[in-house]
Amino acid sequence: MADKNLIKHALNVTRTQNFAGWYQEVISEGDLAEESGVRGCMVIRPWGYGIWERIQKLMDAEIKAAGVDNCYFPLFIPLSFFEKEADHVDGFAKEMAVVTHHRLVGDGKGKLIPDPESKLEEPLVVRPTSETVIGAAMSRWVQSWRDLPLMVNQWANVVRWEMRTRMFLRTSEFLWQEGHTAHVDREDALKETMRALEMYRAFAEGPLAMPVVAGEKPENERFPGAVATYSIEAMMQDGKALQAGTSHYLGTGFAESSGIRYQDKEGSQQYAHTTSWGVSTRLIGGVIMTHGDDDGLRCPPQIAPHQIIIIPMLRDNDDDEVVLEYCRTLRTELLALSAFGEPLRVLLDTKATKASNKRWSWVKKGAPIIVEVGPRDVSEGKAAVLRRDRLYKDDGKLATAFTPRAEFVSGAVAMIEDIQATLYAEAKARMDANIRRDVTDLATHFAGDEAGFAGWVEVQWARPTGAALDKIVEQLKALKLTMRNSPLEAAAVDGACFFTGEPAVERILIGRTY
Amino acid sequence: MADKNLIKHALNVTRTQNFAGWYQEVISEGDLAEESGVRGCMVIRPWGYGIWERIQKLMDAEIKAAGVDNCYFPLFIPLSFFEKEADHVDGFAKEMAVVTHHRLVGDGKGKLIPDPESKLEEPLVVRPTSETVIGAAMSRWVQSWRDLPLMVNQWANVVRWEMRTRMFLRTSEFLWQEGHTAHVDREDALKETMRALEMYRAFAEGPLAMPVVAGEKPENERFPGAVATYSIEAMMQDGKALQAGTSHYLGTGFAESSGIRYQDKEGSQQYAHTTSWGVSTRLIGGVIMTHGDDDGLRCPPQIAPHQIIIIPMLRDNDDDEVVLEYCRTLRTELLALSAFGEPLRVLLDTKATKASNKRWSWVKKGAPIIVEVGPRDVSEGKAAVLRRDRLYKDDGKLATAFTPRAEFVSGAVAMIEDIQATLYAEAKARMDANIRRDVTDLATHFAGDEAGFAGWVEVQWARPTGAALDKIVEQLKALKLTMRNSPLEAAAVDGACFFTGEPAVERILIGRTY
Ligand SMILES: [Zn+2]
Ligand SMILES: [Zn+2]
Repeated sequence: MADKNLIKHALNVTRTQNFAGWYQEVISEGDLAEESGVRGCMVIRPWGYGIWERIQKLMDAEIKAAGVDNCYFPLFIPLSFFEKEADHVDGFAKEMAVVTHHRLVGDGKGKLIPDPESKLEEPLVVRPTSETVIGAAMSRWVQSWRDLPLMVNQWANVVRWEMRTRMFLRTSEFLWQEGHTAHVDREDALKETMRALEMYRAFAEGPLAMPVVAGEKPENERFPGAVATYSIEAMMQDGKALQAGTSHYLGTGFAESSGIRYQDKEGSQQYAHTTSWGVSTRLIGGVIMTHGDDDGLRCPPQIAPHQIIIIPMLRDNDDDEVVLEYCRTLRTELLALSAFGEPLRVLLDTKATKASNKRWSWVKKGAPIIVEVGPRDVSEGKAAVLRRDRLYKDDGKLATAFTPRAEFVSGAVAMIEDIQATLYAEAKARMDANIRRDVTDLATHFAGDEAGFAGWVEVQWARPTGAALDKIVEQLKALKLTMRNSPLEAAAVDGACFFTGEPAVERILIGRTY
Repeated sequence: MADKNLIKHALNVTRTQNFAGWYQEVISEGDLAEESGVRGCMVIRPWGYGIWERIQKLMDAEIKAAGVDNCYFPLFIPLSFFEKEADHVDGFAKEMAVVTHHRLVGDGKGKLIPDPESKLEEPLVVRPTSETVIGAAMSRWVQSWRDLPLMVNQWANVVRWEMRTRMFLRTSEFLWQEGHTAHVDREDALKETMRALEMYRAFAEGPLAMPVVAGEKPENERFPGAVATYSIEAMMQDGKALQAGTSHYLGTGFAESSGIRYQDKEGSQQYAHTTSWGVSTRLIGGVIMTHGDDDGLRCPPQIAPHQIIIIPMLRDNDDDEVVLEYCRTLRTELLALSAFGEPLRVLLDTKATKASNKRWSWVKKGAPIIVEVGPRDVSEGKAAVLRRDRLYKDDGKLATAFTPRAEFVSGAVAMIEDIQATLYAEAKARMDANIRRDVTDLATHFAGDEAGFAGWVEVQWARPTGAALDKIVEQLKALKLTMRNSPLEAAAVDGACFFTGEPAVERILIGRTY
């Protein structure tokens, strides 16, 4: 394997050199997104947006299958909604985009300004979440136990003014789905909270091939107002955690502040128990940092906008039409096949660019299978097949396999499925290998983290609250660490709390985070 | 048919009594949308949003099939982009939502205010369209003729501050798609302009069952900066026109202001020729005013979120399980069928409400077929089938057909297709009957329009420009009339201009409009 050091990779920065720089390079070289000129807002380019469309399509089917209805709520939220929600208005300070005027006019000096005469009586906030407006709608829609459960979801853009942004991971504007549900009682609401969490876990580990740990967030990391917050946490290749989805059980607190009440079967008024849950374009950042390598993204086939790219090697001569015809036939044969319950997505790339440029462009984008066809392949009835997950041979050369066409076609579905499984298995092995359960001193363990990819540490703890919890959070913060979640599937406890020495009640993961 | 006057319709307002009031009632009683509390912004409820999802799904497939890539561009546009675009900044005055601050804080007196310290150096405008940011992106993405055509589309929310709003038709925030394409020359750009127009025409007349006239807008109705603007115009049941989609050929003007240049095959720099085209949630308003009747919406099957509703008549006794089982089997049989190339969409409505309430709720929503099943239907192997497009018999009673189950199932696809065709044929006949070509005096013809549904008038004209055109526009405006478009498929001209008496060069439609 030593030869691999000689490989001239497609990106200029490797993961070990500079993980953050590598991440940006995958995004720009893979045509996933770019800066828009408006700080913190990105342009999501076709390949990046195609991945989001795949995520939306597959997740939306799960959401609908659970009986949740999609709706659309307004972009703007009156400022007064936040006053109602804020516990202490005077201490309130939140980063949000505030609309104060409704007209632009010339100022008479060649510049445009917000027309002072168009100042809004009540400023409008660009939604950071639709919690409050959906709560207000639910209070109108829910009257009787017959109206419950009420389960709605929205796919939308939201804005949280961020000072330090990073594409897909933390942007001022991002795309997400937010599910909001109301139920007759705690049991039914908790069931929905856990259904959504399990939907996210299965989605991450299925279509995204991204192993995660599903668990409950500690009290200090709960969504404000939630009785319990659950998350899926994924391990990036630098060992940091990415919170990739959350599901909250809100008890009756949210229903009380929003007025979501119903008449029960006995005729008395009750507050509904509510939940909310969401994932965002952040998932794309997670996919990049889970599967990317030094040649760019490796896109899991289930969410790849195109799974197989066919590149005709054209020479501007008489052979070209024969090559194109061969490629078209190959594409037709492949389109008749299905993987993961959907027809294969196959692109014949006829752009007027050199074939080798196209190949590297698709390598950087992470198309799962890249097939090149030249006149010689046509005469031999073959195709040059490159699997993106196994790009190089041990000697450092491209692992292109010259395969008889019929053999490639008959094996294409298995290859697609194998790439999906391989990406998951690789990431799963890495995550499992980097969760340590024997660490006794966090400072020492994480000291070398800049270079060493220290991963996560799982400890047993007594789940302290109040001041005792605050103290732990502060200690961790000094080490740039946070508690991620208490895994639902952790082993039973058998010892003392890592922090307090009291009898432990559960296990919890600790790590650095995005 | 006299008995029909005795029908007690599901809505409180009829179309003839008060068309505008009827429209609002269809929307509220059909659970399509409601006011949000933020002026001009609506909440789109599940049934309304489900229709939009159907529109998106079918249209998006057409857009992708044309080789157009979906992207996502930022919600916020810097104010300076509008300064660049404005011809004369000093006369500029446009209704737009302007973000001026990025933080809310308590003012110390129990209120929240935009933090004065968070004032943005450059205000941001909430996109009224993404024209300018997409132009800026295209100028980065286009270098060579090899990069053309560059065709992108975005599904997004946009905001145009409106003083007078009407749900779906004119709202401050609405949902739309905007296609933007760049081409090497006029010919290619015009081809794309016409492809998009034809896509819209076929979409309106196909899935929406809404007949339209495709044609070119007169000069005074062109999109600012466009060389030519084309539209599809639909006739509402009050005879007014609804511009339901537009496609613009922008020449090189937009490329010049955005800097979209490419190196041609000979090595010299050229400006690209660009197009843009869009449709919005306004289409839903068009569907309501084309197909609605005094019992609510009649939703064309192709865009109905559910095409067949099965309502079990439950009595809270031992028969219930038998009825439910029969309904589930019926649903399974129907789900195995396809219409318009997609599996039937069938809902078994098990909500705990009276069956007759459910029936009327689905009538008002416009579900194409409503099936009720009671214990007696089960024992007779039948189902009570109601077609939404033919609700009443001549005697004014509901036209429920007690049909053997197997017969209903085997005829379901044909019934779905027939409803789609019937809705189109009805609307088409109405539009055709209400385009008059013999009108000599517009004032007289449109005088009785408040009651008489005067429809449109087609005239021949000389296509004057400048002052001569202005004069015609003013004359029409005094009669509350506008020119809609010059139909692409109009008959040849054979006379003088209706306005100027000069030889006519084309025909043009005149009418009242939304
Ligand atoms: Zn939420
Ligand atoms: Zn546009």
